[in-house]
Amino acid sequence: LNQGFPEVIFGLGKTPEQIAAIFERLAAKGLPVLATRCTRDAYEAVRAKVPDAEYNPLGRTVTVRVNVGSQQDNLVDDVGAAESKSTSSKKTEQRECEHNISGVEALGTVAVVTAGTADLPVAEEAAVSAQAMGCQVRRIFDVGVAGLHRLLSKRDELMDVQVIIVIAGMEGALASVVAGMVDVPVIAVPTSIGYGANFGGLSALLGMLNSCALGVGVVNIDNGFGAAALAATIVRGYRR
Amino acid sequence: LNQGFPEVIFGLGKTPEQIAAIFERLAAKGLPVLATRCTRDAYEAVRAKVPDAEYNPLGRTVTVRVNVGSQQDNLVDDVGAAESKSTSSKKTEQRECEHNISGVEALGTVAVVTAGTADLPVAEEAAVSAQAMGCQVRRIFDVGVAGLHRLLSKRDELMDVQVIIVIAGMEGALASVVAGMVDVPVIAVPTSIGYGANFGGLSALLGMLNSCALGVGVVNIDNGFGAAALAATIVRGYRR
Amino acid sequence: LNQGFPEVIFGLGKTPEQIAAIFERLAAKGLPVLATRCTRDAYEAVRAKVPDAEYNPLGRTVTVRVNVGSQQDNLVDDVGAAESKSTSSKKTEQRECEHNISGVEALGTVAVVTAGTADLPVAEEAAVSAQAMGCQVRRIFDVGVAGLHRLLSKRDELMDVQVIIVIAGMEGALASVVAGMVDVPVIAVPTSIGYGANFGGLSALLGMLNSCALGVGVVNIDNGFGAAALAATIVRGYRR
Amino acid sequence: LNQGFPEVIFGLGKTPEQIAAIFERLAAKGLPVLATRCTRDAYEAVRAKVPDAEYNPLGRTVTVRVNVGSQQDNLVDDVGAAESKSTSSKKTEQRECEHNISGVEALGTVAVVTAGTADLPVAEEAAVSAQAMGCQVRRIFDVGVAGLHRLLSKRDELMDVQVIIVIAGMEGALASVVAGMVDVPVIAVPTSIGYGANFGGLSALLGMLNSCALGVGVVNIDNGFGAAALAATIVRGYRR
Amino acid sequence: LNQGFPEVIFGLGKTPEQIAAIFERLAAKGLPVLATRCTRDAYEAVRAKVPDAEYNPLGRTVTVRVNVGSQQDNLVDDVGAAESKSTSSKKTEQRECEHNISGVEALGTVAVVTAGTADLPVAEEAAVSAQAMGCQVRRIFDVGVAGLHRLLSKRDELMDVQVIIVIAGMEGALASVVAGMVDVPVIAVPTSIGYGANFGGLSALLGMLNSCALGVGVVNIDNGFGAAALAATIVRGYRR
Amino acid sequence: LNQGFPEVIFGLGKTPEQIAAIFERLAAKGLPVLATRCTRDAYEAVRAKVPDAEYNPLGRTVTVRVNVGSQQDNLVDDVGAAESKSTSSKKTEQRECEHNISGVEALGTVAVVTAGTADLPVAEEAAVSAQAMGCQVRRIFDVGVAGLHRLLSKRDELMDVQVIIVIAGMEGALASVVAGMVDVPVIAVPTSIGYGANFGGLSALLGMLNSCALGVGVVNIDNGFGAAALAATIVRGYRR
Amino acid sequence: LNQGFPEVIFGLGKTPEQIAAIFERLAAKGLPVLATRCTRDAYEAVRAKVPDAEYNPLGRTVTVRVNVGSQQDNLVDDVGAAESKSTSSKKTEQRECEHNISGVEALGTVAVVTAGTADLPVAEEAAVSAQAMGCQVRRIFDVGVAGLHRLLSKRDELMDVQVIIVIAGMEGALASVVAGMVDVPVIAVPTSIGYGANFGGLSALLGMLNSCALGVGVVNIDNGFGAAALAATIVRGYRR
Amino acid sequence: LNQGFPEVIFGLGKTPEQIAAIFERLAAKGLPVLATRCTRDAYEAVRAKVPDAEYNPLGRTVTVRVNVGSQQDNLVDDVGAAESKSTSSKKTEQRECEHNISGVEALGTVAVVTAGTADLPVAEEAAVSAQAMGCQVRRIFDVGVAGLHRLLSKRDELMDVQVIIVIAGMEGALASVVAGMVDVPVIAVPTSIGYGANFGGLSALLGMLNSCALGVGVVNIDNGFGAAALAATIVRGYRR
Ligand SMILES: Nc1ncnc2c1ncn2[C@@H]1O[C@H](COP(=O)(O)O)[C@@H](O)[C@H]1O
Ligand SMILES: Nc1ncnc2c1ncn2[C@@H]1O[C@H](COP(=O)(O)O)[C@@H](O)[C@H]1O
Ligand SMILES: Nc1ncnc2c1ncn2[C@@H]1O[C@H](COP(=O)(O)O)[C@@H](O)[C@H]1O
Ligand SMILES: Nc1ncnc2c1ncn2[C@@H]1O[C@H](COP(=O)(O)O)[C@@H](O)[C@H]1O
Ligand SMILES: [Mg+2]
Ligand SMILES: [Mg+2]
Ligand SMILES: [Mg+2]
Ligand SMILES: [Mg+2]
Ligand SMILES: [Mg+2]
Ligand SMILES: [Mg+2]
Ligand SMILES: [Mg+2]
Ligand SMILES: [Mg+2]
Repeated sequence: LNQGFPEVIFGLGKTPEQIAAIFERLAAKGLPVLATRCTRDAYEAVRAKVPDAEYNPLGRTVTVRVNVGSQQDNLVDDVGAAESKSTSSKKTEQRECEHNISGVEALGTVAVVTAGTADLPVAEEAAVSAQAMGCQVRRIFDVGVAGLHRLLSKRDELMDVQVIIVIAGMEGALASVVAGMVDVPVIAVPTSIGYGANFGGLSALLGMLNSCALGVGVVNIDNGFGAAALAATIVRGYRR
Repeated sequence: LNQGFPEVIFGLGKTPEQIAAIFERLAAKGLPVLATRCTRDAYEAVRAKVPDAEYNPLGRTVTVRVNVGSQQDNLVDDVGAAESKSTSSKKTEQRECEHNISGVEALGTVAVVTAGTADLPVAEEAAVSAQAMGCQVRRIFDVGVAGLHRLLSKRDELMDVQVIIVIAGMEGALASVVAGMVDVPVIAVPTSIGYGANFGGLSALLGMLNSCALGVGVVNIDNGFGAAALAATIVRGYRR
Repeated sequence: LNQGFPEVIFGLGKTPEQIAAIFERLAAKGLPVLATRCTRDAYEAVRAKVPDAEYNPLGRTVTVRVNVGSQQDNLVDDVGAAESKSTSSKKTEQRECEHNISGVEALGTVAVVTAGTADLPVAEEAAVSAQAMGCQVRRIFDVGVAGLHRLLSKRDELMDVQVIIVIAGMEGALASVVAGMVDVPVIAVPTSIGYGANFGGLSALLGMLNSCALGVGVVNIDNGFGAAALAATIVRGYRR
Repeated sequence: LNQGFPEVIFGLGKTPEQIAAIFERLAAKGLPVLATRCTRDAYEAVRAKVPDAEYNPLGRTVTVRVNVGSQQDNLVDDVGAAESKSTSSKKTEQRECEHNISGVEALGTVAVVTAGTADLPVAEEAAVSAQAMGCQVRRIFDVGVAGLHRLLSKRDELMDVQVIIVIAGMEGALASVVAGMVDVPVIAVPTSIGYGANFGGLSALLGMLNSCALGVGVVNIDNGFGAAALAATIVRGYRR
Repeated sequence: LNQGFPEVIFGLGKTPEQIAAIFERLAAKGLPVLATRCTRDAYEAVRAKVPDAEYNPLGRTVTVRVNVGSQQDNLVDDVGAAESKSTSSKKTEQRECEHNISGVEALGTVAVVTAGTADLPVAEEAAVSAQAMGCQVRRIFDVGVAGLHRLLSKRDELMDVQVIIVIAGMEGALASVVAGMVDVPVIAVPTSIGYGANFGGLSALLGMLNSCALGVGVVNIDNGFGAAALAATIVRGYRR
Repeated sequence: LNQGFPEVIFGLGKTPEQIAAIFERLAAKGLPVLATRCTRDAYEAVRAKVPDAEYNPLGRTVTVRVNVGSQQDNLVDDVGAAESKSTSSKKTEQRECEHNISGVEALGTVAVVTAGTADLPVAEEAAVSAQAMGCQVRRIFDVGVAGLHRLLSKRDELMDVQVIIVIAGMEGALASVVAGMVDVPVIAVPTSIGYGANFGGLSALLGMLNSCALGVGVVNIDNGFGAAALAATIVRGYRR
Repeated sequence: LNQGFPEVIFGLGKTPEQIAAIFERLAAKGLPVLATRCTRDAYEAVRAKVPDAEYNPLGRTVTVRVNVGSQQDNLVDDVGAAESKSTSSKKTEQRECEHNISGVEALGTVAVVTAGTADLPVAEEAAVSAQAMGCQVRRIFDVGVAGLHRLLSKRDELMDVQVIIVIAGMEGALASVVAGMVDVPVIAVPTSIGYGANFGGLSALLGMLNSCALGVGVVNIDNGFGAAALAATIVRGYRR
Repeated sequence: LNQGFPEVIFGLGKTPEQIAAIFERLAAKGLPVLATRCTRDAYEAVRAKVPDAEYNPLGRTVTVRVNVGSQQDNLVDDVGAAESKSTSSKKTEQRECEHNISGVEALGTVAVVTAGTADLPVAEEAAVSAQAMGCQVRRIFDVGVAGLHRLLSKRDELMDVQVIIVIAGMEGALASVVAGMVDVPVIAVPTSIGYGANFGGLSALLGMLNSCALGVGVVNIDNGFGAAALAATIVRGYRR
């Protein structure tokens, strides 16, 4: 991964100290950096060394721009706002960005669509990652299939993007319904949200793999980052 | 099970001779009889002994009315018609019936809804069984979620029934979507239609058990008969 | 879901603060509210904002009536009583209610039947939810199939309800036995109670899906709320 | 295994010729022989070499007594009778034997209990095997838990045996219910009867392993022979 | 379960207070009591109310004799001894008892055999339970199949018991090997000891169900109590 | 799916007569048609009605161009050639096409890469489907990871395509290796090729979902058609 | 794979014609050839083109030596002998070979050990493959752990080989027991022999992976060839 | 296990006190000791009794040499160094040792190869164990298949060892790729690293069992010790 793509650190299983050490080394080279699966403790450790690092508490990402002096509006560590948003009645979010952390112009737009509030952490991981890899992101949240009118009212916003990332747990039906509505690629991310016969995301995973709609590719359970990487890879092709 | 309910024979694992012998014995008592999971050979064996027995080749059911002389319009052994229907472009079927094989007046209406043509055998098993147990049946076929307009155009027909049986394989998403549209009980039947990560119906089964919509009860994979029995049990309660 | 049905909050994966915020907003509109999967901490957070909120410690539900000044006898936060009950020798409980939290008259009666004491949390979630959705509830606890006389002695109480919710872990056999005794719909809830080859409720789930009795619909493992929603949907039909 | 126990041939995966060759060799030594999982073709191959060999078409067993000239009443190759029995309305069978194929006096009585007609092949494998290993056998068939009265009416017959073999597919609930009624050891045999979420007998297997009743030991799916061997081993101990 | 059998409390999922309350109530009636799956905290809660209660820290059982004043030698709460034993080089243990907690004479002898030290908790649960239900117990520990000489040197001790309980995790091979050496019933208890492809005891469970040896019955993973109950049920039969 | 995309018939579970009837109806409208999962019998039934229909015996596809009179070079029914190819020593195939069956100019190039000869049926389904949906196809076969030099020698051919479809059974490692070599989207198709712990393609499916390489989307086991549909959807975006 | 190793054809999923064509091409180059998973039809097709090809009907292998004119004693197509052997009472086989099909001297000796007669096909595949790859093979069959004396009597023959391949279905316990007896590497091959909770070899596979003995490596279910390749790779090292 | 092999303690499930007691007893006999799966607390408990004991914090091993006075350079408890190494940019490690803890000369060299940093704990368990059992160890870390150049640059170092242990999570593809590059035995260790469809290491396990490369034997998930034992068993053979 290279032009316009950040260095990536996978935080799961690493200590805050380990993450901070790698982060600092990369940032010191002037590289844009994205760290995923980071606890707030990990973020604090990073910030002690890289003061401009920013945290997305829902997505558990830490990022730093190349141009560290500038403002990074849409990835702010605004915990209260971000968390209350996940429980607010005004549920469908749309925040887009113009520039990614590498300072390159956005390649195109990726919609990140979720079924329910419980899918937000994975959605934010995907959204921040896609932005970090150069995509403009449109968030369309809480449009699960048990209330179709919500989804149908977003049809226009789904129509003019280059790629759609659909994030859903439980039965994972949203991927099929969205893919049936649009003619752009749909990247389906099953989430481990649920209990009982959910079996850690297996129900959504199998549902998405068996989608009766065309144009759907599946990534691992809860892998918001992987979905973003595939989306950015597709979008990048449109610029060549 | 009793008043207005037929005797039931489960044909799976029984030879044509065994099925015919049981069928004849029950019909001889003047009882209405329903046999499920019957091959055409089994039907031929039955017809040799009970000439009025009728076959539904898609649903693999054999039935005989109490009043054996009368006409049984909607359960006819019209193979060509039934089979070609499953591949015709005019895909959504609606056939209702006035009287069940026990000769009692219909208790209420059950919609049998399917996602795709491959679900038809299970749907016909459900439909014939529900009719045999005293329900009027409305068939709404091929309204899978990858083409929402088809389903949305059937909204009215879904609204004025007592119970809806939703039959779907693959990701089984149709149950959630239908249950979100209506406020009557939905009985979800996963089908084993599919391949690969379908794992013999597991994907649809898990999807339906994890439905994010309210008012859904699930029966075993391919168990059209069981769904009908539950539907009839519910509908029967409305008459008390 | 609407007339006579409360607003519902699914507490799993939400912080006490998030639950309290949503709860307060809905209660402020004068709506009846039901929150499931709530820890006592979550309840304390709610009560700080909605003093009339009541907690069922076994069922982990928080509720508030429309008419907040009135008394809510059967959903009291009487921890000691509720908990000791689960270990008392007088095991079969029967508490019924006249009015639900929406203040509407009960639609009909739902029996909540359990196999063992370990199933009580799911049973209380089902019972409180069914009451909140307008059903009168009859609790019939600890009537597992390894001691048939207990169950057989409850036959009359099982006979005059509209729907029966059967809650059982381990082998889940109770659903089949109860369904064989009655002719009303049975909603089967497998529980994750057990260890070893229970595999998190899989044994009871598969047992219930393969029930040889007629008239059984299954919901997800531990999904007491879902069973109640299906029960209320069925019962509501009897009033139309 | 020795005194009073026959030589055993496991027919699965062996050709008729292979089975016949082994059978002949053992019978020639004057040993009692039991072959399980034998097709009728295998039996014909055996009978060509050992004319006194007898076939149980449901249980798929071939046996020969030590004292080859004598009559072997209860293991007769009475196909028509045996097969029609499985479909007759007179469903509960009780046939007991006085002497086993080794010519030794019966050690004690084993009840073989089944839930449904589909379990008969496994039941007959168990019954013939138990007889061959020196037990008197009492057949109690078709007493599944969805119709408790059938089972309850057999209480006395269940009470005076030394061991009970319970054979059931689907949810396998019968083992728990029977074990709750008696105080002798119960050997539970799950059968692969069923479809869908039965997963080849997994549902009954897990149900039986999770039985909430005391005194239950489980053998492999469809392993009627194994259950009989355990039963005979237990019964043999009573004679020491 | 009755004559000579204690009352049983299943401690898993119950609070120390709940366990103590039930225990006290039963002991107050003069009944012998056995509680399984009890933490030390639970035991302390019981002892505060029933001073004669005794704890087996490895087996996690609490027991009280009928004749509360007498000495209960072999079930002592000798933590240090019991725990160091599990790591001592002198690995094969043999402790037998003359009287059970109901004060009745021992019915017969059950051998409790384990493969490794990690199986000790389940073994002690089985041993204490079998003693409590009236069996004399012979402990034969740490005789796993990877060192056959250990097992072979115990042949005589395995030969003169009525029933053998074999407890093993990992591949569960010990059950087959022991059953091949003896001609008494073998009750196989898979344990969840292991990691990786052990899948919580699945490897041992499947191994035991597929045993090629005759006379083996299987109980649930880690179910030492269940094995003891089956053993006692078998042994009790020898006394009638 | 529409502009430049053919009508698609899923042949699995349909009789030759059903397939032929649908095929004829669509072809009669002048539409390009693609039928997948067709036996040779199905093809014969189609050809009897639509003489210009062509069969790919490895991929089991039947196609007909819009302009039925023209030559369709790369989809010929050249059974001998196609089949012997799969066993020839000259293993890496490269056939590209200029026009799809809709007569529209190719949108871009998709590489279809396979690990072994056993993956050919899925590869041909993918290749023919991608061609039918307007993509130029480059076949790169038999470059499994156990012989890296083969794959490495194809680096240039992998570099100048828009999308790569990687088809592999067994451990499915090829998807990760290819994705690590290129920076275009990789669509991974697990195949059910194998036996034993392959579990019908599960090993390759899980391997691909857990790919440590970036830019990989997974479709269902053996779903060559689905991979092609996703590839064409991506490629189509490059033309807008 | 090269010096002294034959070319290998995996016959599964290939037609007799395909196998014969590849076989002929390789043999024509003067290369030694081994084809596995071949039906007799495949062999006949090969023999028509390569008259010196030999068939092992149990192992389903076809081989041809480099020096095609010479005698190939131990791989003869002696069907009757080979098949009857699998059912003979003289069960433990020992056939060794001096030269492999490449004409090179044997590298060392590999023991092929099986639990039961049903494991013979996999054992012969392993044995023939190991011979073809330059190992001398010692067959030690039918020494399953339910009859330890059989195995113990072969101790000396197990002691003086370089590698042991243990082939077992059911619980797969033989691998642990053998590995505990020797100090050479043990290659464990689970077989799919069995039914019910065997789940296609899963029970033996998990058992072998969880072996408590040291020095065991596992290959795929039924993969006799893979075990032989690993054995030959190890043995080859001893010659360097 | 004997000549030149240490005594081994499996720490999982044992308390620090238990481990220390066993360790001390063995060390007191002058035996070399290896303890695996030890927490730092366990190590502290050991060191209090055996001051020369050394800890590998990544591999969680405690070791003591026979000749306790000498220096044990390559197994030092240099936590900072070991841990930072796992996050350093200089990722491929190579440390070899001349003498094992038993003081015998190294038998031969084993390469321990890992895909990613997360696999380090298992790799260190394998490396320390192999050293303790007399092998010289070459560490080749972080050469996962998504960046082939890293692996290819290590070709020479892979070529001159006797055995290669490949440790990989996720898709486990590294085992196949390495085995394809070399002609020595490859021991594959799947790790439980990952999330979602990794299912606790199942994805890597199945991938490795289905490896299309020759010469691969698999051990249990995360079983670094078991791989080392097999490697040492193979290497030891080369010295005889
Ligand atoms: N959330 C995530 N899920 C899966 N893989 C990730 C994630 N975040 C980062 N990665 C991958 O992890 C790599 C870094 O791993 P590491 O060197 O262990 O920090 C990156 O190059 C990504 O490919
Ligand atoms: N398609 C079906 N699936 C499951 N159960 C069925 C089906 N058809 C009939 N049954 C049940 O099978 C019983 C009859 O079984 P049998 O006595 O074996 O013919 C009926 O009473 C039904 O409960
Ligand atoms: N139905 C059965 N299921 C499982 N094992 C059986 C069965 N019948 C016989 N066996 C076992 O198979 C052994 C004979 O196997 P074989 O030597 O292959 O004929 C007997 O000693 C029994 O232990
Ligand atoms: N360790 C155990 N595993 C499974 N069941 C047990 C165990 N210990 C006790 N039981 C059963 O649990 C019942 C008591 O359950 P409870 O009423 O919940 O205390 C007893 O009658 C036993 O049948
Ligand atoms: Mg689309
Ligand atoms: Mg609804
Ligand atoms: Mg009923
Ligand atoms: Mg009992
Ligand atoms: Mg025995
Ligand atoms: Mg790439
Ligand atoms: Mg060994
Ligand atoms: Mg190699």
